[in-house]
Amino acid sequence: MLAEFSIIPIGAGSSIGDQLAEVLRIVDASGLPYKINPMGTVVEGEWDEVIRLVKRCHKTIMKTGERAVTTISIKDRKGKPNRKDQKVKSIEKRIGKSLKK
Amino acid sequence: MLAEFSIIPIGAGSSIGDQLAEVLRIVDASGLPYKINPMGTVVEGEWDEVIRLVKRCHKTIMKTGERAVTTISIKDRKGKPNRKDQKVKSIEKRIGKSLKK
Amino acid sequence: MLAEFSIIPIGAGSSIGDQLAEVLRIVDASGLPYKINPMGTVVEGEWDEVIRLVKRCHKTIMKTGERAVTTISIKDRKGKPNRKDQKVKSIEKRIGKSLKK
Amino acid sequence: MLAEFSIIPIGAGSSIGDQLAEVLRIVDASGLPYKINPMGTVVEGEWDEVIRLVKRCHKTIMKTGERAVTTISIKDRKGKPNRKDQKVKSIEKRIGKSLKK
Repeated sequence: MLAEFSIIPIGAGSSIGDQLAEVLRIVDASGLPYKINPMGTVVEGEWDEVIRLVKRCHKTIMKTGERAVTTISIKDRKGKPNRKDQKVKSIEKRIGKSLKK
Repeated sequence: MLAEFSIIPIGAGSSIGDQLAEVLRIVDASGLPYKINPMGTVVEGEWDEVIRLVKRCHKTIMKTGERAVTTISIKDRKGKPNRKDQKVKSIEKRIGKSLKK
Repeated sequence: MLAEFSIIPIGAGSSIGDQLAEVLRIVDASGLPYKINPMGTVVEGEWDEVIRLVKRCHKTIMKTGERAVTTISIKDRKGKPNRKDQKVKSIEKRIGKSLKK
Repeated sequence: MLAEFSIIPIGAGSSIGDQLAEVLRIVDASGLPYKINPMGTVVEGEWDEVIRLVKRCHKTIMKTGERAVTTISIKDRKGKPNRKDQKVKSIEKRIGKSLKK
């Protein structure tokens, strides 16, 4: 399945970049295929491995902070692996032009 | 922590009420404190028990369907149990009037 | 259409209750049918009136704060007014029992 | 401000690629800076221009469909334009390595 997640530390002042860097270090080391974008991180894998990764990131933020808001969106489709790259390519093929990524 | 989740079965035609009823039966039987609203279900518990419940609901929808979109929003705050009811009451106290729930 | 929205002020310390009270005051005065829950506010109306309300709330938070994260989820269905109450009732009817709200 | 949005047509069968292609054509023609990812589209602009674009996309889907779920996440920060590219670069600088995008 494909999932996008985002973690917002609350009450840590308005610069939260150090905490997000910590999260991305964990994602990058996880071995799961991922892509970051300005609003969140898209990751591909089975339910348990994706959720385990998000939990580790969320708990890391909660270790130093008082409060966090974590959002997870899951798109699951039977028999469709490697959708992270295929989804965008499939749209581009239909439109007949390359889109900004 | 507090979490709200919503599961949308895709490709099952535009009436998805039977599938959502199945999900709510699972939530109601889970024993976790919950509240449903027209857009999703708010549930309170520890990370593992909340996520286990959402997984069971998601997998139930995927058993009969081809595709689903599941969204989970988590608000976590150290040392604040029973927030499901307290959060709304705290807002009402500040405003000095009862709100529609 | 039905919409749920939530506004999180960032960098305002970990107690954000006063700012959320301000938002709920605006919602309550808007005249649109709404229901608050511990994770957000569900409101029913046409696209423009719903979005105008969310914008007013978001801009109010940004007036005193540096940063905010606002999430809007919209469920739109042709020819289905008054869904705020009907959706939950329809699920309860299928299950044959009253759910926690 | 930065916003990510995603539109899910419901009841249109499980292949919704043609409708998403239609949406991306509108985004690409809008002139607003955007980036698509496998879960949604990130767009940067002022509140009104971003919301106008999302409305046009949502209404296009509702013209041919019965039902749609549209999600919009907004990250707003005073005095921080061009964040679409800067946010990711800022994280990479802190980590000291290039991430997958």
